[in-house]
Amino acid sequence: MPAFDQAIALTSIGENLYGGATSAAYANMVGPFGGVTAATVLNAVLKHPALLGEPVALTVNFAAALASGPFTVEARPVRTNRSTQHWVMQISQADENDQASTVLTATAVTAARRETWSVDEEPMPEVARPDSVARPNMAAMVEWVKRYDIRILEGQIPVVWNGAGNSSRTTLWVRDEPERPLDFASLTALADVFFPRVWLRRATAVPAGTVSMTVYFHADGAQLGSHGTDWLLGQARAQALRNGFFDQTALLWSAGGRLLATSHQIVYFKA
Amino acid sequence: MPAFDQAIALTSIGENLYGGATSAAYANMVGPFGGVTAATVLNAVLKHPALLGEPVALTVNFAAALASGPFTVEARPVRTNRSTQHWVMQISQADENDQASTVLTATAVTAARRETWSVDEEPMPEVARPDSVARPNMAAMVEWVKRYDIRILEGQIPVVWNGAGNSSRTTLWVRDEPERPLDFASLTALADVFFPRVWLRRATAVPAGTVSMTVYFHADGAQLGSHGTDWLLGQARAQALRNGFFDQTALLWSAGGRLLATSHQIVYFKA
Repeated sequence: MPAFDQAIALTSIGENLYGGATSAAYANMVGPFGGVTAATVLNAVLKHPALLGEPVALTVNFAAALASGPFTVEARPVRTNRSTQHWVMQISQADENDQASTVLTATAVTAARRETWSVDEEPMPEVARPDSVARPNMAAMVEWVKRYDIRILEGQIPVVWNGAGNSSRTTLWVRDEPERPLDFASLTALADVFFPRVWLRRATAVPAGTVSMTVYFHADGAQLGSHGTDWLLGQARAQALRNGFFDQTALLWSAGGRLLATSHQIVYFKA
Repeated sequence: MPAFDQAIALTSIGENLYGGATSAAYANMVGPFGGVTAATVLNAVLKHPALLGEPVALTVNFAAALASGPFTVEARPVRTNRSTQHWVMQISQADENDQASTVLTATAVTAARRETWSVDEEPMPEVARPDSVARPNMAAMVEWVKRYDIRILEGQIPVVWNGAGNSSRTTLWVRDEPERPLDFASLTALADVFFPRVWLRRATAVPAGTVSMTVYFHADGAQLGSHGTDWLLGQARAQALRNGFFDQTALLWSAGGRLLATSHQIVYFKA
């Protein structure tokens, strides 16, 4: 089983309840890579026997760093309409006193989608193909970064931390490493591969961590299935960095230029 | 009491529980204006005796149209850290069988913010001042529209529904009518004043309704307080419209050019 599938794997342990465990392959500075945690909580919805349709929106709030080890995911369908369904999720872990403690809250909307008039408003930027872009040397980075093949076209992590940044925008090619067919779970994690925008904008390495992240899925399962293991083009930028928090807005296109997902997060940073 | 304050008013009816009621002054096509419902659920957090800090992020999922009449808001602080707090909220209403039914789910993050290095990445567009822009004739629109003074600079609601739209972007000045000092609740509602992007992009009037909406607050209470009753500049656009759903990303600046909030929503549309 690919490392990603191992990391998001869940076992049914009761009504609306699933057991999972953190994965060393996706370790971050503190706790696991948030993208994989978001994918795991979505996976509980995807595995749920009452699921209607496919994911349209996911919001995940990171309340605390997950400790290494097991955790419990609760996924409850709280309202099922004719073509949409509303979900409330949370992840809990035993704390030092062996009490269940909430480490993540989340909501999702799933829907049975129909084919309609459609248009992408945000065109994919014209960029060099991934095979013409060198792979950045990220050997010294945290473990989860090694689970992605990333080719940065614009907005690399600063080499010199001299406070002289002037843009928060990064454009990159990305796919799972090893290659893995795209699905809703992996797309969710891919929406979180961008390093903190404050590092780039300020050219200063400060502690930063995502507090809340939202993903909107513009592609359905069939469109993701036809994507296979191809590259995605991602672009992320901040809109405001103010008093300890910045936002980060991200776009993910298929290599053919179809917008697959848009994502937003608000990130804590230490000045 | 201004109509807005009446609309979001809540009475404590138990631990984590508040009673409210829909307001005819903010009626939409079906149910109340979603922006006011979002503001009401945030108001439960703001009134809660355990509140830590001020809102940083709010996500609201509209599970069903609110029926006219009373409703119950539950707001639970599920995790309180040193400087951040995580909230889970919902609105329920009695259904036709007098059973409590979930009509809205939500999460929020509040935080005690400290002054840090800050920068706005998204500059306010250079536009004409509001007093030089005519007020659109929206007399025939739904009731809630009358609660805002809106001056559209770009991207009006189409006058001719001929399918010939080519952009989803609207730029407008807006403030409460009657004037009311800006705060977190009114800013939340203001993030939802933009009409559905599909109407503009496609120049076709189709039924549409917000499914999920997220607001990130970049200003703190003091910054909002100093804004007073001044105009806000808002800009909204879609990034993708596909198979029954489109996203809408919005920016709200103070008249002086400070980015106060960024907001995102995913909206159902009927083809």
